[in-house]
Amino acid sequence: MTPGGAVTRETLAALDAADPLARFRERFALPRDVVYLDGNSLGAMPRAASRRVAEVAEREWAEGLIRSWNDAGWIDLATRIGEKIGRIIGAAPASTIVADSTSVNLFKLLAAALRLRPGRRVILSEAGNFPTDLYIAQGLAALLGEGHELRSVAAESLPAALDESVAVMMLTHVNYHTGAMHDMAALTAQAHAKGALALWDLAHSAGAVPLALASAQADLAVGCGYKFLNGGPGAPAFLHVAPALQAQIRYPITGWLAHAAPFAFEPGFRPATGIAAAAVGTPPVLSLACLECGVDIALEAPMEILRAKSLAQSDLFMRLIEERCAGAGLAIVTPREEQRRGSQVSLRHPDAWPIMQALIARGVIGDFRAPDVLRFGITPLYLRYAELWDAVEALRDILATEAWRDPRYAARRAVT
Amino acid sequence: MTPGGAVTRETLAALDAADPLARFRERFALPRDVVYLDGNSLGAMPRAASRRVAEVAEREWAEGLIRSWNDAGWIDLATRIGEKIGRIIGAAPASTIVADSTSVNLFKLLAAALRLRPGRRVILSEAGNFPTDLYIAQGLAALLGEGHELRSVAAESLPAALDESVAVMMLTHVNYHTGAMHDMAALTAQAHAKGALALWDLAHSAGAVPLALASAQADLAVGCGYKFLNGGPGAPAFLHVAPALQAQIRYPITGWLAHAAPFAFEPGFRPATGIAAAAVGTPPVLSLACLECGVDIALEAPMEILRAKSLAQSDLFMRLIEERCAGAGLAIVTPREEQRRGSQVSLRHPDAWPIMQALIARGVIGDFRAPDVLRFGITPLYLRYAELWDAVEALRDILATEAWRDPRYAARRAVT
Repeated sequence: MTPGGAVTRETLAALDAADPLARFRERFALPRDVVYLDGNSLGAMPRAASRRVAEVAEREWAEGLIRSWNDAGWIDLATRIGEKIGRIIGAAPASTIVADSTSVNLFKLLAAALRLRPGRRVILSEAGNFPTDLYIAQGLAALLGEGHELRSVAAESLPAALDESVAVMMLTHVNYHTGAMHDMAALTAQAHAKGALALWDLAHSAGAVPLALASAQADLAVGCGYKFLNGGPGAPAFLHVAPALQAQIRYPITGWLAHAAPFAFEPGFRPATGIAAAAVGTPPVLSLACLECGVDIALEAPMEILRAKSLAQSDLFMRLIEERCAGAGLAIVTPREEQRRGSQVSLRHPDAWPIMQALIARGVIGDFRAPDVLRFGITPLYLRYAELWDAVEALRDILATEAWRDPRYAARRAVT
Repeated sequence: MTPGGAVTRETLAALDAADPLARFRERFALPRDVVYLDGNSLGAMPRAASRRVAEVAEREWAEGLIRSWNDAGWIDLATRIGEKIGRIIGAAPASTIVADSTSVNLFKLLAAALRLRPGRRVILSEAGNFPTDLYIAQGLAALLGEGHELRSVAAESLPAALDESVAVMMLTHVNYHTGAMHDMAALTAQAHAKGALALWDLAHSAGAVPLALASAQADLAVGCGYKFLNGGPGAPAFLHVAPALQAQIRYPITGWLAHAAPFAFEPGFRPATGIAAAAVGTPPVLSLACLECGVDIALEAPMEILRAKSLAQSDLFMRLIEERCAGAGLAIVTPREEQRRGSQVSLRHPDAWPIMQALIARGVIGDFRAPDVLRFGITPLYLRYAELWDAVEALRDILATEAWRDPRYAARRAVT
């Protein structure tokens, strides 16, 4: 569609027909009658994933049994998939590995960062950072005591807050709530100028936006396998350590898989060389093998084309919200400038909870984030332009008819 | 068979025909032409597991998408399966949860134990404990500094080493190398008498031997899902915290799933009540759901019958080794007294590595543990008496013909 030109469902269907990424949609198993706008929370299932988990279960586990650690290469999965993710995030070779959960990896890297900057006891972060990141930092500071602390400031105050007490600046690249994206290279340079390390949480970035960890000189990073990487529910997470730090870094959780000779069963811990030392225990193989299916698709799709479609779809969605839901009380939270946003659109409304439940009941699946945000993930690998039309029409109707006031949409559920 | 009576393959086949556990064999998918004696390293696949992972992938993930956290109950899996494991290990209700890996859980509980005993800085363990347990304790002590240390002594020196400096005694209930089993109640009482906490690693115990954590007054425990619980490769681990400690315990890794209100997205960490506070991040759902299939079978099989068969099969195996492999240089490492062993038989031989490779090439799958141990897991849920005959005959032939000297059995592989 031309900026300023009339948008109709037909013009959008024409965009879908011409979409260079259209073929990727068929790689995913998506339910009929659903517009899925929650791939930033749980990515859709690659069709290859169900074949792969069946293969791991029925052939590698049932038939291969313990032999599959060697014969099916289970022992190499975490480094192999980590290496692939490293390419997606623009990291140097041999600097990324799959391990544990994002939260555990954050603990490992924050503890390691504090040891890399002895005498500095502050973890600097942003007040609006993803809560679990703040919790992990709080928990680590409480464990270490002796003046260790998490200092959270508003995003705009980060440069001023960087001083000689800060060991590590921990930021989430794309904000889970608003979709706002930080300038990784600029903030990392500011941290380095004050002697601090920069740790980036890529949960809402990996597979969603262009990343260049090596050229941004990011020291440390963690990220999630089950959002834009489509790795499956609770897929193992990843972590990155810049090559220059790998010889000196000391991880706090020293499990057998991180040992230089894991099967020598030595009584003393000797870390493996390189990123392998960031592993801990035996990985969950079914979930780990499944992750690779999503990662492989992300590697195939050119990021510049993905990003262009993500921006176009986000722009379209915001424009349709403004044009077709005008006066309905929705406020767009996500920054409009392209370089300042990730791949989601967040809308604020005082009745966000029941509105989202009404949308989900109509098959338009986004999610709610407390206290008042409707969150919509833009996933260009499988999202069609025309689906955004349908989503906005559903939202428009729910708001116009006040369908969301139906009492069945008021009830809270365990997971929001 | 009668003790002292002649053992033949036929008498053993008759035992199998009369085995009250025989029906459980059909619940597992086992390859033909394999005698599987490595269920203490990776349990066999329950047939239900491949159906379950297909269901999780194709229905819950692909069709249900993010809705499955509520609708398919993903959010409750870790506590529900943990509760079932709690019954298997004889723990009090609401004291066991599935989370992370055994190594990460050990780190969490050791750090928490040191905080529960302020002023005490020693983690006491056994020199022959599973190396990763020692590594985790070493890593934690190094992180905390200030005199924190792991003190490892010989098993018989444990009572004497328990003094007022010991915060926590960390032991593996059944030794991975020898199969020797500790007296949990007695050692726990000795630890308590000195004011120390007792932490038990149940990796080779859960699902293998009778456990009564509540009556033994064990304070803390960790354990593995993929050995005798047949939960699948790298299945998530579990941990246990005695109810009396749950109000005061403080975990070091404070992730969002452990928050009192995980979806309130509060900036400060407030722990959940009870064992839920021991969770960290999002669990790997495919591997987690799969674990439940193995746990359900373990709950169905009466432990007293399992234990009787395990002891009978271990006795048979040791007797056949002594009778049919006499003079071949094998030494039985596992204690003969029933109350002093778990559910494995370990044999020592200077050429253990190539001998085990030759055995595996003939379809008899055990494993090797450095430097010189052949390890055989006894898994009465799916192991037949006659298979033990076949295993010993294969071993006898390999030793008698020196087939293990074939150069192809010399090469080491990544995983031993």
